[in-house]
Amino acid sequence: MEHWDLHKIKDRHLVYKHLVPSAWDKPKPSPVTHLILILILFSLILFTLETELSFQSKFETTLTVINMIVAVLFGIEYGLRVWTCVENPKFQGKWGRLKFALTPLALIDLVAFLPTLIFIGDTSTYWLRIVRVVRILRLLKLGRYSSSIKMVVNSIRKSWRELVVTFCASLFFLYLSAVLLYFVESDAQPEGFGSIPRAIWWAVATLTTVGYGDVYPITALGKLCAGIIALIGVAIVALPAGILAGSFIEEFKNQRDRGER
Amino acid sequence: MEHWDLHKIKDRHLVYKHLVPSAWDKPKPSPVTHLILILILFSLILFTLETELSFQSKFETTLTVINMIVAVLFGIEYGLRVWTCVENPKFQGKWGRLKFALTPLALIDLVAFLPTLIFIGDTSTYWLRIVRVVRILRLLKLGRYSSSIKMVVNSIRKSWRELVVTFCASLFFLYLSAVLLYFVESDAQPEGFGSIPRAIWWAVATLTTVGYGDVYPITALGKLCAGIIALIGVAIVALPAGILAGSFIEEFKNQRDRGER
Amino acid sequence: MEHWDLHKIKDRHLVYKHLVPSAWDKPKPSPVTHLILILILFSLILFTLETELSFQSKFETTLTVINMIVAVLFGIEYGLRVWTCVENPKFQGKWGRLKFALTPLALIDLVAFLPTLIFIGDTSTYWLRIVRVVRILRLLKLGRYSSSIKMVVNSIRKSWRELVVTFCASLFFLYLSAVLLYFVESDAQPEGFGSIPRAIWWAVATLTTVGYGDVYPITALGKLCAGIIALIGVAIVALPAGILAGSFIEEFKNQRDRGER
Amino acid sequence: MEHWDLHKIKDRHLVYKHLVPSAWDKPKPSPVTHLILILILFSLILFTLETELSFQSKFETTLTVINMIVAVLFGIEYGLRVWTCVENPKFQGKWGRLKFALTPLALIDLVAFLPTLIFIGDTSTYWLRIVRVVRILRLLKLGRYSSSIKMVVNSIRKSWRELVVTFCASLFFLYLSAVLLYFVESDAQPEGFGSIPRAIWWAVATLTTVGYGDVYPITALGKLCAGIIALIGVAIVALPAGILAGSFIEEFKNQRDRGER
Repeated sequence: MEHWDLHKIKDRHLVYKHLVPSAWDKPKPSPVTHLILILILFSLILFTLETELSFQSKFETTLTVINMIVAVLFGIEYGLRVWTCVENPKFQGKWGRLKFALTPLALIDLVAFLPTLIFIGDTSTYWLRIVRVVRILRLLKLGRYSSSIKMVVNSIRKSWRELVVTFCASLFFLYLSAVLLYFVESDAQPEGFGSIPRAIWWAVATLTTVGYGDVYPITALGKLCAGIIALIGVAIVALPAGILAGSFIEEFKNQRDRGER
Repeated sequence: MEHWDLHKIKDRHLVYKHLVPSAWDKPKPSPVTHLILILILFSLILFTLETELSFQSKFETTLTVINMIVAVLFGIEYGLRVWTCVENPKFQGKWGRLKFALTPLALIDLVAFLPTLIFIGDTSTYWLRIVRVVRILRLLKLGRYSSSIKMVVNSIRKSWRELVVTFCASLFFLYLSAVLLYFVESDAQPEGFGSIPRAIWWAVATLTTVGYGDVYPITALGKLCAGIIALIGVAIVALPAGILAGSFIEEFKNQRDRGER
Repeated sequence: MEHWDLHKIKDRHLVYKHLVPSAWDKPKPSPVTHLILILILFSLILFTLETELSFQSKFETTLTVINMIVAVLFGIEYGLRVWTCVENPKFQGKWGRLKFALTPLALIDLVAFLPTLIFIGDTSTYWLRIVRVVRILRLLKLGRYSSSIKMVVNSIRKSWRELVVTFCASLFFLYLSAVLLYFVESDAQPEGFGSIPRAIWWAVATLTTVGYGDVYPITALGKLCAGIIALIGVAIVALPAGILAGSFIEEFKNQRDRGER
Repeated sequence: MEHWDLHKIKDRHLVYKHLVPSAWDKPKPSPVTHLILILILFSLILFTLETELSFQSKFETTLTVINMIVAVLFGIEYGLRVWTCVENPKFQGKWGRLKFALTPLALIDLVAFLPTLIFIGDTSTYWLRIVRVVRILRLLKLGRYSSSIKMVVNSIRKSWRELVVTFCASLFFLYLSAVLLYFVESDAQPEGFGSIPRAIWWAVATLTTVGYGDVYPITALGKLCAGIIALIGVAIVALPAGILAGSFIEEFKNQRDRGER
């Protein structure tokens, strides 16, 4: 018995090491981490394609089967996580596994596969919809691995004040532009510039340089104003983007300098 | 009497400290400042939504009442400002309050609430319009708190010469592009390129990369010219934006360095 | 006689100093320079507006008179330049004035006013056209004062190799994108993607992010390719703009450092 | 015999030096390299124009003749390369020329001219198509000279991690935006937002600021969401472009510093 237990614990530790990125002792992520990441991305691509009806109706049976397999795999992952969580000092003791099961990441893991398994064969549209919406939450499973999102968030936090200052200035300029074109163009184009919210839609599309072309001034005065606004405003509204990029480059340089020491 | 006076003066000083950002002695703005800012933004959002007729006709009575409340609150703010202004050495003495009442910011404060209160119940469209236009001047009340706008303006001033030089070069390139496409496309599209001002509208939309799609060359030669102009010109017209962002990043770095010393 | 001559020479020197920016001894440009610059810009705005037929037909007589006045003023400027040119050591001696009259800038000055004066009252469309086209050459008169254009050109020259390298890479990517979409979309949209030149027009509009919306992929595969191309290519095609801005910022920093020493 | 051999070897070495950029001993590329580069570019422009049917049908005979001449010239270049390759120590010995002929660049050279020569006069559309497709492979011949592409690739590799991190964050934001607008707009516009892939197409066009204008939100809620997404997202999706430009500027600075030492 003792032998078997020890053996079991060794296995559990091995599984734990493969499952949890922070417990892994090599610089590259473990192969299991790679597999789970690929599975998450695959299931998200599947979810994305399924929303396209022409695709969904063609491969209905295949998709149901694949979804089931993915759900079972996520179920196994969840089971292994619950089994091995006690390797983490935080979840040791009598209620350790329960404590782990109630952490946000574990709940997301549970929700990401359970509904699909429960409603097998249940074809009522109501449940299918819930199952579908729930499936998008798998995006949150990426949270465990999203060091890149964390870096961007970190970089945004560091230049937070600059970003707020320039973003406020952008919004101020944008609002003024919208008010100006509302006064100039609202009579000629009530549909596009008949109120300030409508003019704001134009200003956003123009100053971010998206320019869908659904609204644009048609009067000579409106074009003159819009032209001057565009030439000046594009530089102001691009300020946050420039500051974010600058802060990002610096953040990475600092990291590298630290790494070299 | 003396006691009461002293008490009154203490109160007045307290109110003054809460009302005037520069008199506040803590790093974070006072709660009253926060409240006024929220009130200004709220009244601007209200004004913005009211210009949309479908919204305005639905909530007419509610809007009238809310506008009245906002005007009364701005009135109270104005009263408190006039009462406490004598705390400021600049407005002490016999004519201090009058001197304060004639400062631009005080006049803006007055204009921002008085018309709404005067024309209660007056439903003639003429007065309503004036009241409405006046309401947008509340934007200027933000002037008291707009440190972010000031920073942008400051940053623009520091790189003023660079901005002027690159902006002039942009305009020069833009004008040449417009003249070129006027000669190439005016015969094929008199509506879009029939005069240089029209071609300038195309050039602005193209070189700022807004690209509404209301005017674009259709002849082979026009497309060739426009393609080359776009590839080169986008870099030239983006120069002011790049310089502004660079100057901004430097300005913030200097500020932080000063703060660290 | 001697007195009068000396006086005349003193006057000539004064006029010369006011006319020629490099002879002016104060940091700010002379008032005459300002006047000439305003006159050039005014005559260019006039030329620009005149190409708009609705404007031209309304103010025909007024425009003819104003054009005449502008031409006379440019004529006087030309006369003064020829008279004073001998103050410049380069144009001294017997044939000095002729030598000056044959310099490119002097020829431009001559051409910028002479045709308008010669064809007064001549309303044949043929001559009118030549007069009009010639009028745009007044843009070249700006050459004398265009230090900002010179700075941009200088800054372009300094980072010439970088710009060429990134521009070539942009063109390479652009061409590959066009070829790819030509193969993918030409069957579905022969009008927009039926040949590589047409696909290049799409690629330019997309990768510079102008996006007129006259051509865009409609097949699923075409959209997939275009989406990936846009996400990657926008960064590559924006490289020259980034390098130009960077080189410009450095150029200005160097200038300021030199000025401080 | 000996004399003639020696002479031949001297000639061969001269030809080799002119053909192979790395064997050339002057800083500027050899005139032969220039000629070959011009020939490649010329043949690519020809290929590009030929895909335009209206152009192709007009100059059919001329084009056939020019294509033949270009193919013969490429054939001569290939022959000279095979003849001189033994100057390179790598391809000396008995099987040297065969070894050279099997290198990728030599195979590309062969494929770039042989099919055109073989199918002279063969007007079956099937072979013509293959010949045409093969002709675009001449683009790969540029590989021998593409130091600028190499520099861009190098610069991308140096900032690889930063680019991946910001690109992943961009894709994450882009996907979330698409999902949000799919939920908000799919009922109002099943054509444009009826599935997540369709919404992704909108998100790519918006966040890269291309903005074709084929899809845009029309409901008030959709416009509100799209406006906020555009204002924030444009800065995030522009991050890779900013980082690439920054890394490029640094790369060039390092190169120049090395050159100065």
